[in-house]
Amino acid sequence: MTVERIDLGPIALSRLVYGMWRLGDDPDTRPAHVQAKVEACLAQGITTMDQADIYGGYAAEALLGAALRAAPGLRDRIEIVTKCDIVAPVGRHAAAPVKYYDTSAAHVTASVEMSLREMATDRIDLLLIHRPDPLMDHHDTGRALDGLVASGKVRAVGVSNFRPWDVRLLQSAMTTPLVTNQIELSLICREPFVNGDLAFLQERGLPPMAWSPLAGGRLRAEGPGPLRELMDDLARAAGTDWGAVAVAWLLHHPARVMPVLGTNSLDRIARISDACRVPMDRPTWFRLYTAAQGHEVP
Amino acid sequence: MTVERIDLGPIALSRLVYGMWRLGDDPDTRPAHVQAKVEACLAQGITTMDQADIYGGYAAEALLGAALRAAPGLRDRIEIVTKCDIVAPVGRHAAAPVKYYDTSAAHVTASVEMSLREMATDRIDLLLIHRPDPLMDHHDTGRALDGLVASGKVRAVGVSNFRPWDVRLLQSAMTTPLVTNQIELSLICREPFVNGDLAFLQERGLPPMAWSPLAGGRLRAEGPGPLRELMDDLARAAGTDWGAVAVAWLLHHPARVMPVLGTNSLDRIARISDACRVPMDRPTWFRLYTAAQGHEVP
Amino acid sequence: MTVERIDLGPIALSRLVYGMWRLGDDPDTRPAHVQAKVEACLAQGITTMDQADIYGGYAAEALLGAALRAAPGLRDRIEIVTKCDIVAPVGRHAAAPVKYYDTSAAHVTASVEMSLREMATDRIDLLLIHRPDPLMDHHDTGRALDGLVASGKVRAVGVSNFRPWDVRLLQSAMTTPLVTNQIELSLICREPFVNGDLAFLQERGLPPMAWSPLAGGRLRAEGPGPLRELMDDLARAAGTDWGAVAVAWLLHHPARVMPVLGTNSLDRIARISDACRVPMDRPTWFRLYTAAQGHEVP
Repeated sequence: MTVERIDLGPIALSRLVYGMWRLGDDPDTRPAHVQAKVEACLAQGITTMDQADIYGGYAAEALLGAALRAAPGLRDRIEIVTKCDIVAPVGRHAAAPVKYYDTSAAHVTASVEMSLREMATDRIDLLLIHRPDPLMDHHDTGRALDGLVASGKVRAVGVSNFRPWDVRLLQSAMTTPLVTNQIELSLICREPFVNGDLAFLQERGLPPMAWSPLAGGRLRAEGPGPLRELMDDLARAAGTDWGAVAVAWLLHHPARVMPVLGTNSLDRIARISDACRVPMDRPTWFRLYTAAQGHEVP
Repeated sequence: MTVERIDLGPIALSRLVYGMWRLGDDPDTRPAHVQAKVEACLAQGITTMDQADIYGGYAAEALLGAALRAAPGLRDRIEIVTKCDIVAPVGRHAAAPVKYYDTSAAHVTASVEMSLREMATDRIDLLLIHRPDPLMDHHDTGRALDGLVASGKVRAVGVSNFRPWDVRLLQSAMTTPLVTNQIELSLICREPFVNGDLAFLQERGLPPMAWSPLAGGRLRAEGPGPLRELMDDLARAAGTDWGAVAVAWLLHHPARVMPVLGTNSLDRIARISDACRVPMDRPTWFRLYTAAQGHEVP
Repeated sequence: MTVERIDLGPIALSRLVYGMWRLGDDPDTRPAHVQAKVEACLAQGITTMDQADIYGGYAAEALLGAALRAAPGLRDRIEIVTKCDIVAPVGRHAAAPVKYYDTSAAHVTASVEMSLREMATDRIDLLLIHRPDPLMDHHDTGRALDGLVASGKVRAVGVSNFRPWDVRLLQSAMTTPLVTNQIELSLICREPFVNGDLAFLQERGLPPMAWSPLAGGRLRAEGPGPLRELMDDLARAAGTDWGAVAVAWLLHHPARVMPVLGTNSLDRIARISDACRVPMDRPTWFRLYTAAQGHEVP
């Protein structure tokens, strides 16, 4: 079974994305093991790898880089998404006096150069501004992003955690189109379905990426209850687990959501695409939505 | 006395609208009695009847339809507004597993066909999407609405309870202009005056319809207090009741609000248009606004 | 040292603005003393004086007017900003039954005529609508503002305390461009940095004015703590006081914020422009932001 692909114009991503933010939490970070994870994704048609400069304390990109160096040809079989603008006092930024955001042209450009080096590649398929920066000079940032695309070092540009006004502001200073917004979205984080965030992306034809589609385990941690029972029932009927149901719930939305899933278990990686075969229809979608919010729609 | 008319382009509505959501709560639902209510409206120039497929558990449209069948010519003297997209586990949708919204082309089209049949008419003057649907595929919904207008089965299309981003999303996939948004608006529900909902409609030149202009009785139920005293004083001076004052307060707004009023009492129906003769000026408008919010403006 | 100027198209303002809302609170309101305050501003390049019809209970404009009458030539060395639309039951509006807003053409025009008379001038450099009026008829207000600019009585028009939708609504009915929005903005009032208010102004290229940049003393009143300590450290290093740090924090933002500062002390007036020489960089900006909100950015 191969997962669908989403055309974003300059690039295409796999509908399901493998998230590498905890790559360094695995006791085994050797290139061969990282490679095995990527291959387990590729076997399902999951070709898109989600990174960020800051993941693993600015160390996760290098773990992927080592695997790519060790496996010639692997780079060309995947798309690499990475992010920048968070400066936290750890790793290479240990001297920072506080956690802050930096969308200056100088920082964005330097961050991309470092990401290219760390991941042993000559191009980033998709670069995202990681967090909206209350101090963003959109002209400066926009010019830097346009320049990175023109140089070929970055194939496409997007944002993450932006609200509609943030997207409009940055886009207003760019010629390259922003192609996605990676936002938190799940049965627990439902605000974007009603606060205009998804509507804005749908109107612009921008498929969102969804981080924490399982709400970082909170979906499960809440203990027994109507939502858990319903997820378990649907999972049982589809021969899979509750996580696949939660992801299928996102896949059913017309905005063409691309969930980002991160796990270090090869076994669970091999079952990420189970979500694509969980049957989902409108009443079932609303049963899950209703159970999650604890009351019926108005 | 005849109430003003509001030109919405393809159609015109009476400034005051008669709401039929409780038509079935009246012990007397015979065609002649429903007809008497409509005639009591028409005598005042209230020509617009507000329906929804779901009113009365999917039964209110048929009550109006029986009256229209019994009174030849009555249909052409009124405008019918109806709504669709709420599927609740009652009446014809008793088998629904949960209350949900359905803006799919298939559901919207089938709902309109059913409304035409129930109300014994060949056209709906104004069709509204009843609630914003977090699962709306705007291309699908927009195409269906455009098609219904092209077919002549629906003369104009609008929405209800939409936020500005919902309107923009749906409109972006339509050629027919959306002509109104029916929202909750009253001295109790004042958010739309400041949160951009009314400003958006004013900017687009779309007169809103207002449901629950008396806040479903809450305006009265709150007991004695500055708001009640002020409404009573103004009503006394105008020789009418507090409800007419609350409606006059809406009529004074430049957005050209069309309040929807539902009552089963023939006597009260005959006095709906009293609201049009309550004097209202800017200081009085703010006295009511201030009394309702309990503190003066900043 | 001369403070920077901000080009708003039809007019230019000084980057720092002197606020006159408490002019009447000074025991000495004689023309010579008001003139001395203005001269203390001019010595630093602070040429813009911020007024409103309602300041001092509709009395502050006349205090400035008396000073301008007494000092020939002074008028042409300053820019006068004033505001209208608040009607409060005090001074010339003592008979108002409640505090309310009035953006009607009649009120706006009459208010400008009165401001011209009070301030003994033939033109207002910048007229602002003081508060968003929930009863605004944008066609009426827009026409009045366009007319005032066409007549030469007002050189430029803007708003105050408007949200983006309010700006869009009013601008949609005007040919003259609105040139600024004077909003509350400070280390205490940080919402505009993230809620789209600043992003909207940046996208349109409209530099905001900032009222209460020191949060009316609340910044200080909160007592010892990380924010106060950090402000004191930075002030000490720059040889100035915490207020200058708080203003420098606003000046560092790319939106080109114009802080409005009001004090009746000639000594403090003489040091307003100290803010321009407080060093500020991105990490320091975020240290202050973080200390103010009490937790690091996400």
